[in-house]
Amino acid sequence: MPASLPATLVALLYGPDQPGLVARVSGWIFERGGNILHADQHRDMEAGVFFQRVEWVPPEGANVPAMAREFDAFGRSLGMAAQVADRARRARVALFVSKFDHCFHDLLLRWKTGDYAADFVVVISNHPDLADAARGYGVPFHYIPVTAATKAEAEARQLSLLRELAVDLVIMARYMQVLSAEFLRAAPPVINIHHSFLPAFAGGKPYHQAYERGVKLIGATAHYATAVLDDGPIIQQDVARVTHRHDVPDLVRMGRDLERLVLAQAVRVHLETRVLVYGKRTVVFD
Amino acid sequence: MPASLPATLVALLYGPDQPGLVARVSGWIFERGGNILHADQHRDMEAGVFFQRVEWVPPEGANVPAMAREFDAFGRSLGMAAQVADRARRARVALFVSKFDHCFHDLLLRWKTGDYAADFVVVISNHPDLADAARGYGVPFHYIPVTAATKAEAEARQLSLLRELAVDLVIMARYMQVLSAEFLRAAPPVINIHHSFLPAFAGGKPYHQAYERGVKLIGATAHYATAVLDDGPIIQQDVARVTHRHDVPDLVRMGRDLERLVLAQAVRVHLETRVLVYGKRTVVFD
Amino acid sequence: MPASLPATLVALLYGPDQPGLVARVSGWIFERGGNILHADQHRDMEAGVFFQRVEWVPPEGANVPAMAREFDAFGRSLGMAAQVADRARRARVALFVSKFDHCFHDLLLRWKTGDYAADFVVVISNHPDLADAARGYGVPFHYIPVTAATKAEAEARQLSLLRELAVDLVIMARYMQVLSAEFLRAAPPVINIHHSFLPAFAGGKPYHQAYERGVKLIGATAHYATAVLDDGPIIQQDVARVTHRHDVPDLVRMGRDLERLVLAQAVRVHLETRVLVYGKRTVVFD
Amino acid sequence: MPASLPATLVALLYGPDQPGLVARVSGWIFERGGNILHADQHRDMEAGVFFQRVEWVPPEGANVPAMAREFDAFGRSLGMAAQVADRARRARVALFVSKFDHCFHDLLLRWKTGDYAADFVVVISNHPDLADAARGYGVPFHYIPVTAATKAEAEARQLSLLRELAVDLVIMARYMQVLSAEFLRAAPPVINIHHSFLPAFAGGKPYHQAYERGVKLIGATAHYATAVLDDGPIIQQDVARVTHRHDVPDLVRMGRDLERLVLAQAVRVHLETRVLVYGKRTVVFD
Repeated sequence: MPASLPATLVALLYGPDQPGLVARVSGWIFERGGNILHADQHRDMEAGVFFQRVEWVPPEGANVPAMAREFDAFGRSLGMAAQVADRARRARVALFVSKFDHCFHDLLLRWKTGDYAADFVVVISNHPDLADAARGYGVPFHYIPVTAATKAEAEARQLSLLRELAVDLVIMARYMQVLSAEFLRAAPPVINIHHSFLPAFAGGKPYHQAYERGVKLIGATAHYATAVLDDGPIIQQDVARVTHRHDVPDLVRMGRDLERLVLAQAVRVHLETRVLVYGKRTVVFD
Repeated sequence: MPASLPATLVALLYGPDQPGLVARVSGWIFERGGNILHADQHRDMEAGVFFQRVEWVPPEGANVPAMAREFDAFGRSLGMAAQVADRARRARVALFVSKFDHCFHDLLLRWKTGDYAADFVVVISNHPDLADAARGYGVPFHYIPVTAATKAEAEARQLSLLRELAVDLVIMARYMQVLSAEFLRAAPPVINIHHSFLPAFAGGKPYHQAYERGVKLIGATAHYATAVLDDGPIIQQDVARVTHRHDVPDLVRMGRDLERLVLAQAVRVHLETRVLVYGKRTVVFD
Repeated sequence: MPASLPATLVALLYGPDQPGLVARVSGWIFERGGNILHADQHRDMEAGVFFQRVEWVPPEGANVPAMAREFDAFGRSLGMAAQVADRARRARVALFVSKFDHCFHDLLLRWKTGDYAADFVVVISNHPDLADAARGYGVPFHYIPVTAATKAEAEARQLSLLRELAVDLVIMARYMQVLSAEFLRAAPPVINIHHSFLPAFAGGKPYHQAYERGVKLIGATAHYATAVLDDGPIIQQDVARVTHRHDVPDLVRMGRDLERLVLAQAVRVHLETRVLVYGKRTVVFD
Repeated sequence: MPASLPATLVALLYGPDQPGLVARVSGWIFERGGNILHADQHRDMEAGVFFQRVEWVPPEGANVPAMAREFDAFGRSLGMAAQVADRARRARVALFVSKFDHCFHDLLLRWKTGDYAADFVVVISNHPDLADAARGYGVPFHYIPVTAATKAEAEARQLSLLRELAVDLVIMARYMQVLSAEFLRAAPPVINIHHSFLPAFAGGKPYHQAYERGVKLIGATAHYATAVLDDGPIIQQDVARVTHRHDVPDLVRMGRDLERLVLAQAVRVHLETRVLVYGKRTVVFD
């Protein structure tokens, strides 16, 4: 059962701070008959930047897409970058997977439970292993193998599928291929999960790296994929305590729980339009 | 070195929800030349109640106390209960202690570091043990012994001291006496720290209770003292993991760290006017 | 893929402390050609009780069941209660469920991943809803409805199934019926998950209770079911931080993650013979 | 009031794994009339290395130093490296500080409370600021200024003080100088606290680095100082959650709590002979 959707508009906006911004934004909404449900704003004092997430109920019979466009123009008139989402519109999600299935099952079970106001419209994998499981959840599965030689062609097929299905968000649920800078430029936002507390232990085999270094906590990090591997804006992180009693297979097992939770939380805040990307950082209005 | 104080006004308000509240509050401030730095609002959808914390810079040369009074009247005109604080005014704090000194030192060291925009004006104790230490921090110490027979009289002396010193906040830093309902009615707000995860293990010897029950986490709870022991609105809580390797003295030792942190955090949010008490609960705008 | 099993013996023993216990136990194993892999012992100094978990590799060609029986007799000769498990023997598990499926899927997915050295041999439910899902995991499903009038009869059918299938462990994965004292006396150990930080908020609707009380952390507790509801020996607990922004449905959603993790961890330590029940408490050798 | 000391011997030993080690060690102690209170062993299966911490009560009237020497020889006869400590002997600790005083006060207050079975025999600082505070705790204070030009000479004076006072452990409580490889070779073990979750954000200004990178958790790490900065074996780590609402001064404030706790825990396990250094990692028997 997918989540029921609130019939609200959400705007994320940011730009140079100036007096009266809260009053002007809330006034604009009020004058048009909207009622603000939540508003959260933040000032980066050093940088002089203002950030806001505001969610409102439009008046009865409002032309919601028009109101969204008008707000966007209003934001620009204030010198702000705005992003407006109609929460009654269900986001379309593509899941990229390889062989590991813990994040795959976790996200699809949460979706079935109604945690996400979204449609999971496709599973794309470089391995055929999860085909039946995907179909068991009622989601079409596409097997697109990737080798060094065929990578460009495979990415073209992936992109064409994403376009055809009007996908809004790609989730790399332990997809074991690096996406090219070209792919990332052309694709909708991509959320990835890395099994370490970034920036520590970027790259391959982070649990082995963690074990070698003898850290006392292992972590997981969900971030937006960018052209530089494991370097994108961080959305969510968490850690778990380990001791000398845990060998690498234990770290892998404990890490699965971290990865599932951290990725699921990152996906939820993204789908609820709570994440504002700002330079290399995110502001998560949670 | 005490913290420098921002020259801002903070209002906490709550009452029946109604359309346009965010716009009206921010408009009121804007029209008077104020600039909102932070505004955080929340709706309890079930109860239909609106909560807000708003902090603003008054215009140059403003009559701040007058502006605070006017905002208060404005809140009432909206049917809201308002509480307005001038952050440039330093709160006056009394510390109640007995013999345990971990919270006592912790709070006074944080104050010396500048974490609290407040003046610790007196330490009151039913034991003489911490007299020298209090004076070492430059805070007057009053020894007011309490027995069953002298309790009413002792509380009268305590209240008279609080009045004389214009105390705004009382902190029970492991003060081992129960304050009477009469005292609490007459006194400013009182924050207490209880060494358990309330509502579990209220009353005496919570670590022994926790050990007997075999819980896997111990806790600490900071709350506003009310006439019913350990039942007041909770401000902050935290827990720590324990195993069978920990006996009661270990729980006591580990608990000291929890108590210090939880009490210190509760005091900080109270002093920054971030805590709105609502029935038996608090809304902490943090 | 179920986990591969170590060919080891594990003993849990406890009883009155006496000099030389560690030496005598390890000597007994050494003399019979065994090699200790792990040994963890603990003394409750106040009670004068000794606890030990010891795991050893028996010598090549050993008669393992005989060695287990002999160790048991050896323990008794020391005045200790011993429990010996052959880790090469796969435990047989029954899952009791109702309609909530998050713990159900979680446990079965972990089992499929190989986290548990056990066979899940049956799912028993008072609702038919999860029948297909259980069969999808390859586990037989029995629908045994329960009403006040038929409870005794239903429990008799459940017990007869458990006996027939030689079940070693029952897991209540959000099974929404209270098991009778008679059932619990006759059944193998039963692990239950309660969605609060016990002893706080025992009984029904713990998230509503938590919301009403205004706690700042919600919890989950896995324990062995006993005749007194939510009062059995605690195996594992954990908590998550909540704020005023979370309403009861949010607590329910966040609680699902806690319940899954806490129950999964409790099941793992039980299946690895790491839990020694001692009065109302457990010693978890983890 | 310093902690009372248990009259026990503790041995840490490690070396190539071989059958019967637990039995041989416990047998050795038993035969000499000792009674094992705690024994904790661990095998690194991949590396084939055995680790043990064993604590025992020597027989009445035993020559404790002789028993320690004999155990050491016994360990060597097994091919193991052994380290034996007489817990009735109080360790002698030197505190290195600069201007930050939060770890300084924290450690000395814990010591006064009796958390540490040790004598804090000297405070050494490159600034005079904490002289009075140190003397207030009854600990001699030495002001040894350090400049690039005088560093070698200053370190020589520090070393000569450590020798003269027979110091067993140096704690760098936010001492803002890098100790040279020569100093570290000549000195007793040195515990340092770094205000990040190592290996992330080694070197200077870790909170600024954390803020720039936009991490969602900040950390602190206690480790043994080695010739490579922030690269020594890690003893303890912890983290705290941060959001966009926290600016760098907030991270600094929150970090102080982490630093105090993590350093205090690392010092405690070191003083209780619970830390075995093994290559670049530690085994903490906690």
